[in-house]
Amino acid sequence: MSTPLRLGIAGLGTVGTGVIKIIQTHAALLTGRTGRPVTISAVSARTRDKDRGIDLSTYDWEDDPVALATRDDVDVFVELMGGSDGPAKAAVEAAIAAGKDVVTANKAMLAIHGQALAEAAEAAGGVIRFEAAVTGGIPVVKALTEGLAGNQTLRVMGVMNGTCNYILTRMERAGLPYETVFEEADKMGYLEADPTLDVGGIDAGHKLALLASIAFGTRVAFDHMELEGIERISIDDIRHAADMGFRIKLLGVAQMTGRGLEQRMSPCLVPANSPLGQLENAMNMVVLEGDSVGQIVLQGAGAGEGPTASAVMSDVLDIARGFRVSTFGRPAASLERPVPAKATAAAPYYLRMELDDKPGALAKIATVLGESGISIDRMRQYGHSDTTAPVLIVTHRTTRDALDHALQGFAATGVVSSAPVAIRIETV
Amino acid sequence: MSTPLRLGIAGLGTVGTGVIKIIQTHAALLTGRTGRPVTISAVSARTRDKDRGIDLSTYDWEDDPVALATRDDVDVFVELMGGSDGPAKAAVEAAIAAGKDVVTANKAMLAIHGQALAEAAEAAGGVIRFEAAVTGGIPVVKALTEGLAGNQTLRVMGVMNGTCNYILTRMERAGLPYETVFEEADKMGYLEADPTLDVGGIDAGHKLALLASIAFGTRVAFDHMELEGIERISIDDIRHAADMGFRIKLLGVAQMTGRGLEQRMSPCLVPANSPLGQLENAMNMVVLEGDSVGQIVLQGAGAGEGPTASAVMSDVLDIARGFRVSTFGRPAASLERPVPAKATAAAPYYLRMELDDKPGALAKIATVLGESGISIDRMRQYGHSDTTAPVLIVTHRTTRDALDHALQGFAATGVVSSAPVAIRIETV
Repeated sequence: MSTPLRLGIAGLGTVGTGVIKIIQTHAALLTGRTGRPVTISAVSARTRDKDRGIDLSTYDWEDDPVALATRDDVDVFVELMGGSDGPAKAAVEAAIAAGKDVVTANKAMLAIHGQALAEAAEAAGGVIRFEAAVTGGIPVVKALTEGLAGNQTLRVMGVMNGTCNYILTRMERAGLPYETVFEEADKMGYLEADPTLDVGGIDAGHKLALLASIAFGTRVAFDHMELEGIERISIDDIRHAADMGFRIKLLGVAQMTGRGLEQRMSPCLVPANSPLGQLENAMNMVVLEGDSVGQIVLQGAGAGEGPTASAVMSDVLDIARGFRVSTFGRPAASLERPVPAKATAAAPYYLRMELDDKPGALAKIATVLGESGISIDRMRQYGHSDTTAPVLIVTHRTTRDALDHALQGFAATGVVSSAPVAIRIETV
Repeated sequence: MSTPLRLGIAGLGTVGTGVIKIIQTHAALLTGRTGRPVTISAVSARTRDKDRGIDLSTYDWEDDPVALATRDDVDVFVELMGGSDGPAKAAVEAAIAAGKDVVTANKAMLAIHGQALAEAAEAAGGVIRFEAAVTGGIPVVKALTEGLAGNQTLRVMGVMNGTCNYILTRMERAGLPYETVFEEADKMGYLEADPTLDVGGIDAGHKLALLASIAFGTRVAFDHMELEGIERISIDDIRHAADMGFRIKLLGVAQMTGRGLEQRMSPCLVPANSPLGQLENAMNMVVLEGDSVGQIVLQGAGAGEGPTASAVMSDVLDIARGFRVSTFGRPAASLERPVPAKATAAAPYYLRMELDDKPGALAKIATVLGESGISIDRMRQYGHSDTTAPVLIVTHRTTRDALDHALQGFAATGVVSSAPVAIRIETV
């Protein structure tokens, strides 16, 4: 097996650059591990004339990623362009049709077109690998697909967007409002071009949907995910949570229940001393639960040049070693179409709202909760402006349905001056 | 690929039983994932007539594991007997000679005979996989061999013996002395038949030696490991550590330095709020550091029926999927013989000793430290018996060589009434 494995790399941003650096600096190491050299035949990017700090002179250049993907001297097409459609999808489809294997970091493309691409790849005898698409350097796709393959997966959870986690931990540490930290993150280049992808939970939702497919043998169902971002989390919420021994995290949970597949990505209160609660800055953490293995926790950098390039190389080297595995861990045709289910497990909830400062306002809220079958663990009205009073309520365990009923009821009271913030409390 | 993968399982303790349960209950799931059924042709154990709570009637029985390992209807020999030599080694050698693949949970056998077995397997075209030998259900062998294959490994660290971690956390939580908790652990069946394997750090040392081989491309070198158990850790040490914001863990560290391969498994003080410091009870945690990926942390149950059986199945299913990888991640013949190196990195140390309650005793100790080039961060003499005074010292950063010099000097003063306890402080 001394035939080189020849790559075509499309996309020379930080990740693409990182991959080329690894191949250039660790050639002997990689060959020693896989038994064959990994080489680069050609590369492609939007701009050719740009100093990327690496020597590209020995690689052919292709302006068109489709042309790159279908070259005779390319065995594996490495797609690092991004974007759910457009050139990335066209090039991946072309690579598959030409019988190439594909390694990609493109979560959006797979979350939306993963089923069709996986079916096409399997029909053509190719593989699509995407370790780098989920939580950067953490080898979680591998852990779930292979390491826990003997388990029926019970649940997948995790903090999967480093930018959101950075914003939330920075707000708490510095006592700064959301808007200020959001601007900081933007200046530091932490945010996607469309920041909603990050702070709206979409990017993390894509990742969770991909893991859920592997975990439960179901087709990727991102469109069924309950999705809520961190835009409405205030510094007050973070302080109240801290007072009660919790931290707020953008937490993803996927589990298969008797009613169907539950998938949600939303802010949650988690115990401050739990592994998830302890997660600082831009780190990611995934918790995998299997019927035999119990709970496995994986933590690492969720983004960045080195970690993401490491994940890309993991897939490339697996292919060099001759590993062939279906995209989502079993043949795409055998993946079932999941029945979407709302979160049925009861949980306590944290509620914050602004009430009109009128006699009887609080009583109306309490009445709505009672009528919705929700009992109150703690309720507190605190320092307030002239016309409205902020109220904090922690409920006992209740269902999402009962909570939604109460939220509708609040609106009908006419005493709530802005939409309440409702955050599930996960005791993990 | 609908040909079944046929196993022969030797050893029907908790792990063997767990493996059979998975194969019996998850047959369709496993076939769905690998594309081929996993079946059991025959089993073997010391005692045939024993109720193991599972139906063995459809499997052939072999009294002799060597006969089992070489059966024509066995593709993979699953060795779960344990013991570094004797029947386990004989059966594995026979399986390899007969061209079988081998899956084993036997860390002692591989730590001592791994190189010879790996060479034999590769010559015969077989693979030896051992995910279950290292930290139970945590897929760390896979993470290091495959997930981080694009990295030059910088360091491998971890808490790899659940029994020791249970003893240390139980001592702290319940305020109980070592001896009492040791007896508790023994009654609960947490200890190996020879408890020195656990509390002496040998079992954890075996695991670290296996990971170091994968990490650094070196032959397994357990005999070069600096090894120290937890037997001398007192409840006083745990309390002092806690007062300073630390916890005591049996911590393994392997790293390649300019001087050679450093491997140590010894009690260390780690920050109480660090991931390692937070690790409770019988959990295991491994920290992998790569030049691209940074730090990856993996946590899970380090032992027990389900977790260990999950790891065995991971290897079996990889083989069913056709994955072939060298035992230690690259061809055995290419593994270098490591040069053993003492820990050179300076660290602060925690010292506890009993001094004769005589004028000038403390001054003599301080003088020895000064002469050894070690400066003192904190020193405390506290409540004591009639004739001796316990003294606690935290040094500034110093080398192991300087510390060993000081320990020799202490003995020569004639005022130290028992061998000092010296514990490295790792700020991780």
